[in-house]
Amino acid sequence: MESHQVNQDLIKERGRCTFNVKELTHVLDGGEHITTKRKQYEDLVFSIKELKDEIPEEYLSHKDRYENAVRKATILKNISIKYLKENTEDSTYGYVSRTVYGIIKDVSPFLLHSGMFVPTIAGQSTPEQKEEWLEKAMSMEIIGTYAQTELGHGSNLRGLETTATYDNNTEEFILHSPSLTAYKWWPGGLGSTVNHCIVVAQVIINDKSHGVYPFIVQIRDLQTHMPLPGVKVGEIGPKMGFQTANNGFLGFDNFRIPRKNMLMKNAQVLKDGTFVKGINEKLAYGTMVLVRVNIVWDCFVHTALASTIAIRYSAVRHQSRIRAKEPEVQIMDYVTQQDKLFIVIASSHAFNNMHTKLWKGYSKVMEELTQGNQDNLSELHATSCCLKATCTRDAALLVEQCRLACGGHGFMISSHLPILYGVTTAAVTYEGEQTVLYLQTARYLMKAWAAALQGKVLSPTVAYLTDWLSKTCQKWHNTPEGIAAGFRHVAAGKIKAAFDAIQKHTKAGHDPEVAWNMASIQLVKASEAHSRALLSEVTWSETLRKASTVSPNLGQVLKQLAQLYLVYWTLNISGDLLVYSNISKDNLAILRERYEDLLAIIRPNAIGLVDAFDFRDEILSSTLGAYDGRVYERLMVEALKSPLNREPVNASFHKYLKPFMEKAKL
Amino acid sequence: MESHQVNQDLIKERGRCTFNVKELTHVLDGGEHITTKRKQYEDLVFSIKELKDEIPEEYLSHKDRYENAVRKATILKNISIKYLKENTEDSTYGYVSRTVYGIIKDVSPFLLHSGMFVPTIAGQSTPEQKEEWLEKAMSMEIIGTYAQTELGHGSNLRGLETTATYDNNTEEFILHSPSLTAYKWWPGGLGSTVNHCIVVAQVIINDKSHGVYPFIVQIRDLQTHMPLPGVKVGEIGPKMGFQTANNGFLGFDNFRIPRKNMLMKNAQVLKDGTFVKGINEKLAYGTMVLVRVNIVWDCFVHTALASTIAIRYSAVRHQSRIRAKEPEVQIMDYVTQQDKLFIVIASSHAFNNMHTKLWKGYSKVMEELTQGNQDNLSELHATSCCLKATCTRDAALLVEQCRLACGGHGFMISSHLPILYGVTTAAVTYEGEQTVLYLQTARYLMKAWAAALQGKVLSPTVAYLTDWLSKTCQKWHNTPEGIAAGFRHVAAGKIKAAFDAIQKHTKAGHDPEVAWNMASIQLVKASEAHSRALLSEVTWSETLRKASTVSPNLGQVLKQLAQLYLVYWTLNISGDLLVYSNISKDNLAILRERYEDLLAIIRPNAIGLVDAFDFRDEILSSTLGAYDGRVYERLMVEALKSPLNREPVNASFHKYLKPFMEKAKL
Repeated sequence: MESHQVNQDLIKERGRCTFNVKELTHVLDGGEHITTKRKQYEDLVFSIKELKDEIPEEYLSHKDRYENAVRKATILKNISIKYLKENTEDSTYGYVSRTVYGIIKDVSPFLLHSGMFVPTIAGQSTPEQKEEWLEKAMSMEIIGTYAQTELGHGSNLRGLETTATYDNNTEEFILHSPSLTAYKWWPGGLGSTVNHCIVVAQVIINDKSHGVYPFIVQIRDLQTHMPLPGVKVGEIGPKMGFQTANNGFLGFDNFRIPRKNMLMKNAQVLKDGTFVKGINEKLAYGTMVLVRVNIVWDCFVHTALASTIAIRYSAVRHQSRIRAKEPEVQIMDYVTQQDKLFIVIASSHAFNNMHTKLWKGYSKVMEELTQGNQDNLSELHATSCCLKATCTRDAALLVEQCRLACGGHGFMISSHLPILYGVTTAAVTYEGEQTVLYLQTARYLMKAWAAALQGKVLSPTVAYLTDWLSKTCQKWHNTPEGIAAGFRHVAAGKIKAAFDAIQKHTKAGHDPEVAWNMASIQLVKASEAHSRALLSEVTWSETLRKASTVSPNLGQVLKQLAQLYLVYWTLNISGDLLVYSNISKDNLAILRERYEDLLAIIRPNAIGLVDAFDFRDEILSSTLGAYDGRVYERLMVEALKSPLNREPVNASFHKYLKPFMEKAKL
Repeated sequence: MESHQVNQDLIKERGRCTFNVKELTHVLDGGEHITTKRKQYEDLVFSIKELKDEIPEEYLSHKDRYENAVRKATILKNISIKYLKENTEDSTYGYVSRTVYGIIKDVSPFLLHSGMFVPTIAGQSTPEQKEEWLEKAMSMEIIGTYAQTELGHGSNLRGLETTATYDNNTEEFILHSPSLTAYKWWPGGLGSTVNHCIVVAQVIINDKSHGVYPFIVQIRDLQTHMPLPGVKVGEIGPKMGFQTANNGFLGFDNFRIPRKNMLMKNAQVLKDGTFVKGINEKLAYGTMVLVRVNIVWDCFVHTALASTIAIRYSAVRHQSRIRAKEPEVQIMDYVTQQDKLFIVIASSHAFNNMHTKLWKGYSKVMEELTQGNQDNLSELHATSCCLKATCTRDAALLVEQCRLACGGHGFMISSHLPILYGVTTAAVTYEGEQTVLYLQTARYLMKAWAAALQGKVLSPTVAYLTDWLSKTCQKWHNTPEGIAAGFRHVAAGKIKAAFDAIQKHTKAGHDPEVAWNMASIQLVKASEAHSRALLSEVTWSETLRKASTVSPNLGQVLKQLAQLYLVYWTLNISGDLLVYSNISKDNLAILRERYEDLLAIIRPNAIGLVDAFDFRDEILSSTLGAYDGRVYERLMVEALKSPLNREPVNASFHKYLKPFMEKAKL
């Protein structure tokens, strides 16, 4: 770096900000004391020089890159395990998890250890099992992953082929992969890293299948790391992202484990082979819901990262002129650029708000469950399904929009945007594929609609169906509340349409199951509309709540962002609103202008808004997004790290190019 | 591979096809004789064992991967140069270019040699210059690229900083990079491969700037490949895709080249430093338009590749049940899967049709230019701008939709879909960024609207504006022609709205240039709507033309695809249609049903349709898409090639993991 001055445009932008950036940072962190703790933790992590790569890992071979990731992951874990023991507040997850983006950009091989292995032991074990494994897992005396998905089976859990056959002579389960498609495939860390895993397998006792249950299985020797006899394990190869996640495959050849390795908090297999069904199989939903709630948090972080990079770059980059006789302008002054980017900031806040609400809902339902009350579990499950589906796809599209808005330079890995896209888009598929999740929510919505028709009282998130039945012809209002109401009308209209479509197909003689498939495009759209109704209502109400507790200037900015979000989506689904609500063309024309007005209002605060996300340069890990805006110097510095640039002439010239050119002369 | 049997589902699917697959292949190739030639060429290329990688290149380091790409690129060029000399028909480009996907999947370091270096010499040189360089370039005695974009300048050509200052004492130009941002950045092959390039620089004579012009410049020694003194050259590092394209940077330190190295077909600098302006600067548009027309062809190929992979996988993959008591179904039987994939086939045909039309238009205008007639050049330019923008973004979204539709396995590099996405989405930015191109077309559209208001006769592609002015209230028809007409209404309505917005802002006291920026969101939407009107009209008329020349069964299938395309887009832009046309909610409801009917009609032909694209397995290069459908075997075979799977225990265990776990025990 030639100098450490901050780019002049950024200095100017920071001077224009109308609100207190630090105050917003505290709001997003959840309080000033958490900001302080976060920064202390970041100081701790980023003071370690060994976590910084001399040569960016993208230049390395697949194998070297993995080894380097293991090296860094162990250093990082040494810090975070200790820290998490001493800091057990809920808020810790957020800031501990976000440091990793700057260190192991393309996913740690330990991701599923902390994300699934430990929570599954914690959530599905008996007290004795916890005693045996939980502490070891948490301290990483053993390293594990969660092996459920198989080469031939993902979405359909019941179709898993791996068997766990009980042998009551030896009191063991025999794990077996009866075919190639039965191989476990995908678990992070499984390739070469873990020595244990949770294996989900079909329990078979006396030739009778009892369904799929989780087992804890040691797969490698703790001293030598050799795969145990009967275990075939390896890595699955390169992917679109997650290059250092070390995803693996796993097959069993009549591999025996003790009976007590079945996680028996719910269902149990007794010594004599008696199968005891779990009293409440639904309790296992808890972990699944928690993972999806956390994914909505990730959507917040990913869009916050991407918008920080793209907005700072857009303030620094000058290109072309608005007035022919004036100098080239900051590209953020183009209204089309504002159109691409400000919605990303607004969406990031919407995801944050939605996460707050979901987290509260999750905590409440978990609390109720401990008291034996399951009344709100299916609603929570349905809500988390469609919101996971919508937020991940929105986040992926928005991250990609940021990348595209940075022109060619957004295509550079050193911008961090391509890796961020890989990580974000993966979430559309993992932990419940988008369409599959929408259809799960749709089941809940169809039941809710049937109940509404029968005049039953509905759960809060679908109560709008009853309202809609009683007064379909509501006047449209161009206010945030009016827009949120309009979105509920769209959702209700689409839920009804999907319901009617099923009825129609059934009446035409199709089985209900076939009719469901025939109506599934509409069912998916109904679920999506339901999630948009939830997002718009929640982001507005959460914004109002927040705004009432902060300085007036900041409150106003938060409301502007939420309004932008609502108006953007109104214009985006105008076709649905014109069909299912009473919005008029004139309303739309007014909102189109309001949208442009909001872009102009937000413009001077754009840099302040992304500064408030408060990502350190080490976390952003981006040539385009650093705090000082020295974009071009950084691009060149990173390029010069290429091993190809270490030598003036690459060996391929003498080996291939020269003989080739000489042949051409003949 | 355990066996070479074809998957049973695929055999069954192929038996269901209602049309002659080979006939469609011939149509897409442009005739049976071209299919024959294509296959001969492919046989030639794929008989060479050295072109096959033992270890997939994604496992290699960045540097090794580059060297391997140079190796393969020289072998491939040895074949294709000879072949292209002997086969000069227009149709050759298509099939020669598509073989490369299977060999250098992530772009050849020679891409810009053939794509830009040779065409620029051919198009912008004097006869003497052609004499000196063209033959050498075509035979690859010299290897070149095209260096225009700089670190600080892409879209704004006039803002380029590299200078070419004329010294009339020595009759030389002095090339110089006055700043870091003046460095050339991006040209493919520039990093370590080429020894020549076209450099676009500001011509300065006696301190006066005359604008930017192209120069041919040798940058490396032909014998040693060392950069010449005064040249700083290197590679720019890893990207989201194009990993083996060897994109580079280039700076000059008062580097001298002879005067005659300025390409002087148009503008000239005489010995004494007299600057002679080109008679027709617009002629340079030709190359730009040609490149964009070719990009529309690429969109056809990319979506054809992606849909082949995703559709075959969807026929082979079984997951979950439609009827609870029946076996798991092929995922292609889910209507939601059909919804995701059949539009990709239909779009691929639409791009093919659009390319045919654009190619005809391009050839006609080039012919006219040789006769001094430029009347249709700006229309062609405007058309190619918005269509390049729309087709590339559509193609990228559709390729990604295919990837997502393959669930987790679509995330595997071995599926080929992630690399294909990288290549496809890059085209949204290169050769004219999407928004910039839309705004270029918008300038043409605003002029056309002003002319229409004045009652002038308009060019064919915008003649609908005149119609619309005379009869705005046309009845809606749910026919292909009616839909195409509706799309023109939307375009006209949006063009008028953008025009009015500019007027409004101007009347409010803003400069016209500022007003343009303020209206730019609407200008972009107007351009996009114009391109959708063109696409829908052209794909329908080209389909009718084709259908009239083929067997009735095939003709019917082609019409079904075109109808699907039209209905899909009608539903997609329903909001615009409800505002700008006379479509009713009932029309939309009927089309929603027709869309679902069309999916069901196309379903039995899905495999036949992608078989007809006729990609050899070597070109598809996909574990999920091979002709025999042996998906799971291929996934495992590819995974086992991982160097991490060559040894049971990776070195990182003893180095990092074991000490880490032992520390945890304490």
